[in-house]
Amino acid sequence: MTHKALRLKDRADRRLKAGHLWIYSNEVDTKATPLKGFETGELVAIENAAGKAIGTGYVNPNTLICARLVSRDAKYMLDKSLLVHRVKVALSLRERLFDKPYYRLIFGDSDSLPGLVVDRFGDVLVVQISTAGMEAVKDQIVEALVQVLKPTGVLLKNDGTSRKLENLPEYIEVAHGEVADEVELEENGVRFLAPVMKGQKTGWFYDHRLNRDRLRHYVKGKRVLDVFSYVGGWGVQCAAFGAEEVICVDASEKAVDLVHRNAELNGLQDKVGTMQGDAFEALKQLKAEGEQFDVIIVDPPAFIKRRKDVKAGELAYRRINEMAMRLLGKDGILVACSCSMHLQRDSMLDALRAGSRHIERTLQIIEQGHQGPDHPILPAIPETEYIKAMTARITRV
Amino acid sequence: MTHKALRLKDRADRRLKAGHLWIYSNEVDTKATPLKGFETGELVAIENAAGKAIGTGYVNPNTLICARLVSRDAKYMLDKSLLVHRVKVALSLRERLFDKPYYRLIFGDSDSLPGLVVDRFGDVLVVQISTAGMEAVKDQIVEALVQVLKPTGVLLKNDGTSRKLENLPEYIEVAHGEVADEVELEENGVRFLAPVMKGQKTGWFYDHRLNRDRLRHYVKGKRVLDVFSYVGGWGVQCAAFGAEEVICVDASEKAVDLVHRNAELNGLQDKVGTMQGDAFEALKQLKAEGEQFDVIIVDPPAFIKRRKDVKAGELAYRRINEMAMRLLGKDGILVACSCSMHLQRDSMLDALRAGSRHIERTLQIIEQGHQGPDHPILPAIPETEYIKAMTARITRV
Repeated sequence: MTHKALRLKDRADRRLKAGHLWIYSNEVDTKATPLKGFETGELVAIENAAGKAIGTGYVNPNTLICARLVSRDAKYMLDKSLLVHRVKVALSLRERLFDKPYYRLIFGDSDSLPGLVVDRFGDVLVVQISTAGMEAVKDQIVEALVQVLKPTGVLLKNDGTSRKLENLPEYIEVAHGEVADEVELEENGVRFLAPVMKGQKTGWFYDHRLNRDRLRHYVKGKRVLDVFSYVGGWGVQCAAFGAEEVICVDASEKAVDLVHRNAELNGLQDKVGTMQGDAFEALKQLKAEGEQFDVIIVDPPAFIKRRKDVKAGELAYRRINEMAMRLLGKDGILVACSCSMHLQRDSMLDALRAGSRHIERTLQIIEQGHQGPDHPILPAIPETEYIKAMTARITRV
Repeated sequence: MTHKALRLKDRADRRLKAGHLWIYSNEVDTKATPLKGFETGELVAIENAAGKAIGTGYVNPNTLICARLVSRDAKYMLDKSLLVHRVKVALSLRERLFDKPYYRLIFGDSDSLPGLVVDRFGDVLVVQISTAGMEAVKDQIVEALVQVLKPTGVLLKNDGTSRKLENLPEYIEVAHGEVADEVELEENGVRFLAPVMKGQKTGWFYDHRLNRDRLRHYVKGKRVLDVFSYVGGWGVQCAAFGAEEVICVDASEKAVDLVHRNAELNGLQDKVGTMQGDAFEALKQLKAEGEQFDVIIVDPPAFIKRRKDVKAGELAYRRINEMAMRLLGKDGILVACSCSMHLQRDSMLDALRAGSRHIERTLQIIEQGHQGPDHPILPAIPETEYIKAMTARITRV
């Protein structure tokens, strides 16, 4: 089977050579290979300006990123065989690092599979596809996953808003076997139920695994507040690590309900309480009631979703963390997280610095966390990095 | 006892309010308080332009940074009592985080004691003083340390080249009790001898503790190369974590000798070998001999000591890491470190990216490490951050 070629303009292959995987529409030699000659999601050979094959990929003629490189070897197209290979390469890293089968198995570009995310919950796999090229091979994706991992269920959780960019419909579909509404996972030795069918993203955020694990050194015998708790990833782990009392705050009734059930799953129901409501309001209320905590985790949703939101997002970010600092007792610990790739690390540090000085505290950054090793970063594609977690000690020195 | 005042120019107190501790000579109102009116190292009250006391500090009239803030409360001067308080505040963080008494106890500015570093090796404390203000109170420093920690020995390891900037003499002196040439420490459950009297800096680098600890997830049954090994901090720990074989490379005969003795101290002498010589030459030789490794750690001394060395340093940095990548077997792990605050994280990532692409490999950053929590960072003073450790997986995908 031969495939059409997508030819690049002169020197437009340089970014790819440097490690990037995306091709912008203005980089294509549209005289030689007009974009409208391609179907949405069509597999192609990619050529440099001289007509030399430099790899393969897939095209979406309607998007700014009009193609993505899938292989640097022109022999390999995005088919079941290549998918099986890539899944095995990704799996070997995860199996080397994790004792149990709960992790992000495929992280898009970073695992050389642009547009594909797969989270593993033991025998259940949750797949998110975000590009037309990957959507076009979704059957092969499921077949490859079934072949390599023999799961009892594969869920296509294709309801991400990013699909709109590629004009893909949103849907949730069990593509293989059976998948329950909630599936169990284990993280850092603590058990959880993740709402894979109706929760956020794939139902769970494996990206903070290592950052949560570090909390075991901070929370023994302490009073902990988990702000934007979702289903209790941070809070229930703190309780398991020996915290005396944990309060989880989240706006979603379903998330708060799962916090309680996740605490119970670990026999920690007496340690974990919840507050349902807006985080800013909850922190204000706790302050008014004179409450104090030893450790506070602030892990908000992305305040900055697009570049134009940066300023407002940074202000909101500073505000919520300053409110948290006010609730800390003597020698308190703040774990300030961000999952927004638009919030630069330096801006984040500066927001924390400004917040602490505003209330005349000294803030020492004692640890800096990142997304776990099942979310690799490609230095050529800065968008592959998004998680930050700053552990700060707040004193009156 | 009253102290002279150092008065700042209009608005020159803003950086201090924002969290910084340094005062530059051009920020002083030298009409009101001429710098030549102060002795080197003299304690002072610090005033804003309106004459309001904003804290206390010490002066060096001969340096660009002519004063450092020691307290934001004008009541407290840098005396034994303040030193005792600061040591206790610093100690409480370390005792919260570490089971055993081996850590950096005081990290200069970050522990509100600019110019003072103290590393703890159980009952032995190694002190480094880098400013005239701290030198002026060195007896009180020793007294404070003895009072809080009851050490059997306190060593003033005042031979750092940075002392030249403050026109301080270089010397090494046992200021209390007795100190052996080498003292024992434990890091991540592994025992070491550190050459406190004649080694680099304080004799040991606690700053990479957490990064070394992560290696336990990567080295079991593997062949490991530790480049710029010094006394074996990385390499001997890898052997203790189950590596099949470790080779440590260092230019110093004394360091290489200590690698062997540190391996023996842990019963690992059969696992750990050494190569004494220039790292670039050693890597070339290993390549020529067809050697391969599963995990390579590259932890060079600061290639970039001053800003003007940045370009040459970045090139050397890329070169040594590219050489290391060439020695990795299939699916290898590179731990690329930098202790130079002048090497920006983005430049470091880019050097690794460029090196990997040059030899046509795919490089995934799977972990990012920083200095440990006994080396806190003050966001207002970027110079307090210097350690970076990037764990990369190198594949042929």
